[in-house]
Amino acid sequence: MGLNVAMIGTGFMGRAHSNAWMSVNKFFDLPLDAVLHTVCGTEPDQTRAFAEKWGWRHATTDVQALADDDEIHLVDITTPNDLHRPHATMSLAAGKHVACEKPLAGTMDDARAMRDAARTARAGGTRSSVWFNYRRCPAVAYAHRLVAEGRLGRLYHVRGQYLQDWGGPNTPASWRFDRRRAGSGALGDLGAHIVDMARFVTGDEIVEISGGIETRFIDQRPVPGGTGSAPSTVDDCVLFLARFRSGAVGSFEATRLATGNLNRNCLELNGELGSLRFDFERMNELEWFDNTVDAGRRGWGTITCTTAGVHPYIDAYWPPGHPIGYEHQFISQAADIIRELDGGSAVVELPDFEDAYRTQQVLEAALASARQGRAMTLADLDE
Amino acid sequence: MGLNVAMIGTGFMGRAHSNAWMSVNKFFDLPLDAVLHTVCGTEPDQTRAFAEKWGWRHATTDVQALADDDEIHLVDITTPNDLHRPHATMSLAAGKHVACEKPLAGTMDDARAMRDAARTARAGGTRSSVWFNYRRCPAVAYAHRLVAEGRLGRLYHVRGQYLQDWGGPNTPASWRFDRRRAGSGALGDLGAHIVDMARFVTGDEIVEISGGIETRFIDQRPVPGGTGSAPSTVDDCVLFLARFRSGAVGSFEATRLATGNLNRNCLELNGELGSLRFDFERMNELEWFDNTVDAGRRGWGTITCTTAGVHPYIDAYWPPGHPIGYEHQFISQAADIIRELDGGSAVVELPDFEDAYRTQQVLEAALASARQGRAMTLADLDE
Amino acid sequence: MGLNVAMIGTGFMGRAHSNAWMSVNKFFDLPLDAVLHTVCGTEPDQTRAFAEKWGWRHATTDVQALADDDEIHLVDITTPNDLHRPHATMSLAAGKHVACEKPLAGTMDDARAMRDAARTARAGGTRSSVWFNYRRCPAVAYAHRLVAEGRLGRLYHVRGQYLQDWGGPNTPASWRFDRRRAGSGALGDLGAHIVDMARFVTGDEIVEISGGIETRFIDQRPVPGGTGSAPSTVDDCVLFLARFRSGAVGSFEATRLATGNLNRNCLELNGELGSLRFDFERMNELEWFDNTVDAGRRGWGTITCTTAGVHPYIDAYWPPGHPIGYEHQFISQAADIIRELDGGSAVVELPDFEDAYRTQQVLEAALASARQGRAMTLADLDE
Amino acid sequence: MGLNVAMIGTGFMGRAHSNAWMSVNKFFDLPLDAVLHTVCGTEPDQTRAFAEKWGWRHATTDVQALADDDEIHLVDITTPNDLHRPHATMSLAAGKHVACEKPLAGTMDDARAMRDAARTARAGGTRSSVWFNYRRCPAVAYAHRLVAEGRLGRLYHVRGQYLQDWGGPNTPASWRFDRRRAGSGALGDLGAHIVDMARFVTGDEIVEISGGIETRFIDQRPVPGGTGSAPSTVDDCVLFLARFRSGAVGSFEATRLATGNLNRNCLELNGELGSLRFDFERMNELEWFDNTVDAGRRGWGTITCTTAGVHPYIDAYWPPGHPIGYEHQFISQAADIIRELDGGSAVVELPDFEDAYRTQQVLEAALASARQGRAMTLADLDE
Repeated sequence: MGLNVAMIGTGFMGRAHSNAWMSVNKFFDLPLDAVLHTVCGTEPDQTRAFAEKWGWRHATTDVQALADDDEIHLVDITTPNDLHRPHATMSLAAGKHVACEKPLAGTMDDARAMRDAARTARAGGTRSSVWFNYRRCPAVAYAHRLVAEGRLGRLYHVRGQYLQDWGGPNTPASWRFDRRRAGSGALGDLGAHIVDMARFVTGDEIVEISGGIETRFIDQRPVPGGTGSAPSTVDDCVLFLARFRSGAVGSFEATRLATGNLNRNCLELNGELGSLRFDFERMNELEWFDNTVDAGRRGWGTITCTTAGVHPYIDAYWPPGHPIGYEHQFISQAADIIRELDGGSAVVELPDFEDAYRTQQVLEAALASARQGRAMTLADLDE
Repeated sequence: MGLNVAMIGTGFMGRAHSNAWMSVNKFFDLPLDAVLHTVCGTEPDQTRAFAEKWGWRHATTDVQALADDDEIHLVDITTPNDLHRPHATMSLAAGKHVACEKPLAGTMDDARAMRDAARTARAGGTRSSVWFNYRRCPAVAYAHRLVAEGRLGRLYHVRGQYLQDWGGPNTPASWRFDRRRAGSGALGDLGAHIVDMARFVTGDEIVEISGGIETRFIDQRPVPGGTGSAPSTVDDCVLFLARFRSGAVGSFEATRLATGNLNRNCLELNGELGSLRFDFERMNELEWFDNTVDAGRRGWGTITCTTAGVHPYIDAYWPPGHPIGYEHQFISQAADIIRELDGGSAVVELPDFEDAYRTQQVLEAALASARQGRAMTLADLDE
Repeated sequence: MGLNVAMIGTGFMGRAHSNAWMSVNKFFDLPLDAVLHTVCGTEPDQTRAFAEKWGWRHATTDVQALADDDEIHLVDITTPNDLHRPHATMSLAAGKHVACEKPLAGTMDDARAMRDAARTARAGGTRSSVWFNYRRCPAVAYAHRLVAEGRLGRLYHVRGQYLQDWGGPNTPASWRFDRRRAGSGALGDLGAHIVDMARFVTGDEIVEISGGIETRFIDQRPVPGGTGSAPSTVDDCVLFLARFRSGAVGSFEATRLATGNLNRNCLELNGELGSLRFDFERMNELEWFDNTVDAGRRGWGTITCTTAGVHPYIDAYWPPGHPIGYEHQFISQAADIIRELDGGSAVVELPDFEDAYRTQQVLEAALASARQGRAMTLADLDE
Repeated sequence: MGLNVAMIGTGFMGRAHSNAWMSVNKFFDLPLDAVLHTVCGTEPDQTRAFAEKWGWRHATTDVQALADDDEIHLVDITTPNDLHRPHATMSLAAGKHVACEKPLAGTMDDARAMRDAARTARAGGTRSSVWFNYRRCPAVAYAHRLVAEGRLGRLYHVRGQYLQDWGGPNTPASWRFDRRRAGSGALGDLGAHIVDMARFVTGDEIVEISGGIETRFIDQRPVPGGTGSAPSTVDDCVLFLARFRSGAVGSFEATRLATGNLNRNCLELNGELGSLRFDFERMNELEWFDNTVDAGRRGWGTITCTTAGVHPYIDAYWPPGHPIGYEHQFISQAADIIRELDGGSAVVELPDFEDAYRTQQVLEAALASARQGRAMTLADLDE
């Protein structure tokens, strides 16, 4: 049986998602076959070429046509953040399942509207999900299991850092540096991932932001392919401190100016019985310190997360010690989306709009804390 | 325009190659489109299921039918080592291009026959190649370039190690432990890769084996899914020392019993001006020591080989810092095969049967040296 | 010529300092010979045994006697934090040079009094210094030089973390967990080091604390060698965010509950032209990313800081690649103290009480920010 | 009670040993106090200055005077390799205990004579020992214990590498490059350490050399401080393969031309139940893979070998996570020498001349194998 997928957007994420839908039934045994039904872009020729390359059956530039097409089961949204809301609410209203890129939205208003639309749709059996892809990295999914099994004991500290360095002064202007399009800079782009990952792996919730810094180092950027410069209106870097419901404390840092760090999406947890460290640049590895091992033999261990039957998702791919890459997270997420739509269960929890809204709240509170120069609870924010 | 591919074999390598042919035109812009024309297996139902899953248009269990099918342009061989010769010579004789899994063959006799057949076919415009996939790992291809640019200066030492640990006493019997099927154990399976990689990266040739050890630690293995045990007749581990034409010295080690090392395919070069280190378990990284940097600031640098426009092949995939995996080497090799068949050039050299034969000679000399307990030149072996 | 040293305290630090004074003239060529003149402890027998073991000529339990002894040139203070003030002010008043363990003091009042006493003494030629030993780790001193040479360019981020894990629930009560004796917990013990190190390496000053967390996870600790428990009244962990005068942002974390991290005193700087990373557990190494190297060949480099003539202090010890240890920082600091007292210059800046007072202010502001739940400038604090 | 030590040699090793004798009773509680009685050098002024700096009571240039001095209990030899024999045999004949730098000797003849002299002396209660210092690195001593406890199970592989890079073409001539003085180059200087370390950690003995390479890349070296060049007559690099009594196989490499490797004295063991890795450049760490841990959670662990009461020798120094350095191995060895001379036991086995002779045999067999181009057993060598 087929699951007809429509996808909006033909950029970097459009490629990653196309590959996921193309590959998912090759690697996973699933109850439904993903069909690359329609891709929707902004420019007709480019969209048709994209469709042909990746095997999408139809190409359109009319996003409304997706909602109107009865054959389409799922709308996959990979557009800039400000378009998430119209595309998602339109699709949900038309009874299409929605899989939306992260962050949920560029603004809290949008996020709230999307959450509300998803709640309504859910009552009618229509599902939403968000591509927080790192949850499906085997090392991260396994970290989540270790915590769920109680292997860290009482949690003391959480350290989340997403360090990139592509945002230097020579990087040209784009929608990602425009607050009206992107909502924020490093915060939504990178901070969203580490907050989601921290919430997912710990199973805990952030209840207070104890202070934050929002900063922009580069105010003007060269116009791409042109002369002159355009203003950059987003943050380059956001730092904040947090308290979790359990009492654990956390520090978070998202930046595009950490020279030398290409894509260092890192999480570290320290608990009474053990500690964990993850760095996406070495995505097949999880560092694990087991404090219950005898003194003398205990140390930080590097687990290569490629053991079939143990490390989540890896069975679908290659033998032990054969690294998988960035894109496999999307293939694995596509598999989980299919499983859920067929009434089954994802291997690890698939974040819906409700869940993604809670991540958005944390980011909003971090911004508010940074701008107001004071600690605040998430409950404050709700008021 | 299409390149009709037929593939023999539906195991682990059959999956990796199917994925490569399916994906190659998605990621690369190429003059020919790979068509998954026919897959050939041993069991009809399993072969049909495999074909359906991976999108092969036809399925057969008759290998001769491939030679007879005028539509087929290229035969891709992923069968056990002892079948490389019949499948390759049959295909070349029928005017099909051949892409064969490594090692070239299980025995020198087979290897020589294959090389000779490829020479003859080459004269008629038919091409052979061997899937020494690690050459197309961006880090390895880049290491090759650094050496070719003279950045290591005079080469002193080569260290090649392929360490795995799946060959312990509980691992069941299979064709890989049967000398009649596999020809050898770790030597052909792992040693072939490190010898090819050392030859490729250095651009140098091994001219003497200065001593070797061939050893088997496990003589009996459990029968899979059954009771009792079956003899293991291959080496578990082969070590040898070598001299290169340039005067550099080398040590090589291939083993399936290096506990804790899942798939550590490593190469280290030490030259007067610099040194290099590669470990496939961290395949997106290359370690580089530049001895021309001022004392004080020089050190072993970890290069993340994901810079578009610089690190070979990586442009085809994702942005900087987004790891690729094991399978991408096959996609990149499929792209190079297509380029060569269209009259263009591979990004880095594609090994043909002539080239693979030289690797086979080194392995043969290593075995002979180990068994005879003496040093020998490759010229000795030719006699 | 001799420099007669008196030392107060015979604990862990007393041993480290004794070793430094014993060894300094063996490794360094200096204008004055350190003489281990008098050690002052609290218990007569133990003090005498300590003196005999380490070669101190005299032992006393009367701290006033040190001030009264005309032969003594320098008083070295290794006592608990609350005693720094009386011991230092007494010694300075008596015209003795003072070298005091860090943090400068347990309270701001004490710190201010000590700074003022040092100012007065300085006018009379009497010198103060504080044992912020990590400045004299060759990797840290070299990092300072790289920054001073402008090799990082514009500084964006500072990350300081001092992670230890000895403070778990089974660790017995001691003066270090008693706020009255220690002033604070992780903050003064560990935070003082990372703030000093960040100030030293960057040459920049923290001007604002943007939020902080002070937390205690363990409220009761077992009485050592006894039964029952005693309250722990200090922080286990302090986190804070900061802005530097240059506009750089910083995150700081000091904790005794980061399971798996024995003594991870870490600093990371990200600048426009380069980045640096240091981890004291690998104290002979400095990680350095040179963003001016060609794309392709640039990467995080691990510099082994043992090059004579280049890496500070290392000439005094062993050949390249021969690690030095924790204690060598004290030997090198003793050498710099001697140089300064003889009118020469320290190899890198030796922090005096004035300098250490600025570090203390940062810690105080961090605490105030955490307790008041708001950002504050250091200027606010001064009011 | 005092142990009067005389030391011959005032170079790099003379400093390391002086420091050891000076420090040993500060860090360790021992039944005898080491007394720095007499140092013997070649040049009177330099020797006197050395004595004064390090606290030797007497200075002499007459080596015979040491044998004649009844006050002296132990002669410590740090001279070039060709002088080990006359200095050791003279001292042993005079009833002095001897502690000799490694390798035991420059030639097998010398080594045999020294072993025989030590046998005779031993019968009279006079002890010999050799400064194979790495045995007393806590990580190495702990590795030895893990093996002795059976934690590796059946041993498969041993990999020993001592990689340095100071021997490039610009390094000036010295006794270390003169075969008549040094006996050999990398082999005796570095190979001796890895063979001793492999024998010590495994508790196994090498019984066969299966092939070797001895090579020299640099034939002429600049005369230090002068013009022109002098011949280098020693090996720059020696590689060899070995079989152990237990059936394990081994590869060994000693080189002074492994660019980027300052002092990488490495040992790796692979056994059925676990694996170990050591690298002296990170001497406070031991890497340990426990194959008995559940799949999923097992991985290479980095043990920081600073746990008091567990990791050998470390109690004597600093708290957990505070690195020790190169010289501490000598202090710990001095402590073990004192313990043995007082009738006690070394913490881990102290190699005597008998033991060091077996290491020398392995090196000799490696050379013979390399030169003759054939495998040979150590029994062959004895004939």
